Amino acid sequence: MRIVEVGPRDGLQNEANTIPTEVKVAFVDALSATGVREVEVSSFVSPQWVPQLADAEDVFAKIKRPDGVIFSALVPNERGLERAEACGIDKVSLFTAASESFNQKNINATTDESIDRFRPVVAATDLTTRAYISTAFWCPYEGKIDPAAVVRVASRLTDLGVDELSVADTIGKASPADVRVLLDQLLPIAVPVALHFHDTYGMAIANALTAWKEYGIEVFDASAGGLGGCPYAPGASGNVATEDLVFALRASGATLDLAPRAFVEAAQIIEPHLGRPLESHLAKACRTE
Amino acid sequence: MRIVEVGPRDGLQNEANTIPTEVKVAFVDALSATGVREVEVSSFVSPQWVPQLADAEDVFAKIKRPDGVIFSALVPNERGLERAEACGIDKVSLFTAASESFNQKNINATTDESIDRFRPVVAATDLTTRAYISTAFWCPYEGKIDPAAVVRVASRLTDLGVDELSVADTIGKASPADVRVLLDQLLPIAVPVALHFHDTYGMAIANALTAWKEYGIEVFDASAGGLGGCPYAPGASGNVATEDLVFALRASGATLDLAPRAFVEAAQIIEPHLGRPLESHLAKACRTE
Repeated sequence: MRIVEVGPRDGLQNEANTIPTEVKVAFVDALSATGVREVEVSSFVSPQWVPQLADAEDVFAKIKRPDGVIFSALVPNERGLERAEACGIDKVSLFTAASESFNQKNINATTDESIDRFRPVVAATDLTTRAYISTAFWCPYEGKIDPAAVVRVASRLTDLGVDELSVADTIGKASPADVRVLLDQLLPIAVPVALHFHDTYGMAIANALTAWKEYGIEVFDASAGGLGGCPYAPGASGNVATEDLVFALRASGATLDLAPRAFVEAAQIIEPHLGRPLESHLAKACRTE
Repeated sequence: MRIVEVGPRDGLQNEANTIPTEVKVAFVDALSATGVREVEVSSFVSPQWVPQLADAEDVFAKIKRPDGVIFSALVPNERGLERAEACGIDKVSLFTAASESFNQKNINATTDESIDRFRPVVAATDLTTRAYISTAFWCPYEGKIDPAAVVRVASRLTDLGVDELSVADTIGKASPADVRVLLDQLLPIAVPVALHFHDTYGMAIANALTAWKEYGIEVFDASAGGLGGCPYAPGASGNVATEDLVFALRASGATLDLAPRAFVEAAQIIEPHLGRPLESHLAKACRTE
């Protein structure tokens, strides 16, 4: 079982308030001290697209790099890869979506174009790569996504030599039934699959337990404190909180040497800068424990 | 599949702000118009113990009573039964817990004494009865509860002639693994079992889906808007929100002719009186839909 902590990138990217670099560094350091094996630290997309993560180089320069922790970053293209490798990242994250409309609005490219942009990045790096397939279940513009579209994208990414897919329920509307339908079709053709659930409709934990117990999925993305919210429904839950996911997996018998509370405490480093309290189930329950 | 809407009783009982009677009546009327088949309306315990529900008679006198909806109430003893039957309730709810400490602190009785108090109530009424077994998984004072204690209480209640048990995860800490362990032991000996999950640690939906898919449980309690919070961790999630549960069950293929949004709208009748916004997943997601 492996948790990929995406709070510093996917979480903060969707937070409106600008977080000071030193606070991000303290957050990443707290996360890498939890025992989590992988942290997605930042993004090397153009700062004009994601101003919140414009300090990627500075963050990488200042964080501790304990042994045994993989520090990854989002990389949009070859220019981004140069910047990222200069920072000594351990793993490259790439981004596309199963929905054409989502890719058009989000990265101004067709799905095929977005995958074509990956090719030189994957070819140019010796690092491990993961590719996100966003909107793999539901799209905010197109509604339910046909699993065949996900399979097609996954197949192209696998052919390209990507090492891991992270299949994402971007608007948090997938149910365990949706998870089963997609994994039945996807697992036979795809490279190792991680799942990236959002908790917008409250089903993230049920989905993760289903994927693990019924399909043997052992890699899950999560964001400490549930940071990130949902950009398509401001105020709604977004990324499943790492502490909630770890709590549920451990309570269900997973071998996972992580303390849920450590992720609440890491997120509390960010909390004063958010303009709202942390809203994960455990953050709320811990406040008065 | 049957949902028992417990917001007006279990939800409001745990809300600090006093809700005006006419607001409660509008809430119950909105709930009974959703198509839900059972609503727990109020409690006939002594008003000094639960001042929020001191207007039980008045609420029952003013609510609409559409055909096909069961209106129940909590009844602590024979005196409460007289009051409740004078209001024309359809079903009697009784209350005990699997944890001795919880019963002592909550109703100042041993578990056996609490069950002994049920006997004359069950004997005196022709109405259908349900009995809550609170703290059936975890207790705020004793920690993990031995399933054998739940089985013992369930067995006594079944012998007494209670028609339905509602087995409750009072502090919302049960995992699907806990649900499996308990149901394996409980179902062979108990009368029909409903499950009453709290979402404090974010596992309520996973638990309900497990109980339904793996054990065929078809009766679940829930509270519109997630009203009630958690009295043992102020600010934490309490009762699973009806809209979240209905959404997840329907998304998982349950035959349930209920619109999740109708429960959000019902809870919005209470929301201005709460002193906080509704915090169910769907209430948050709907705010900006």
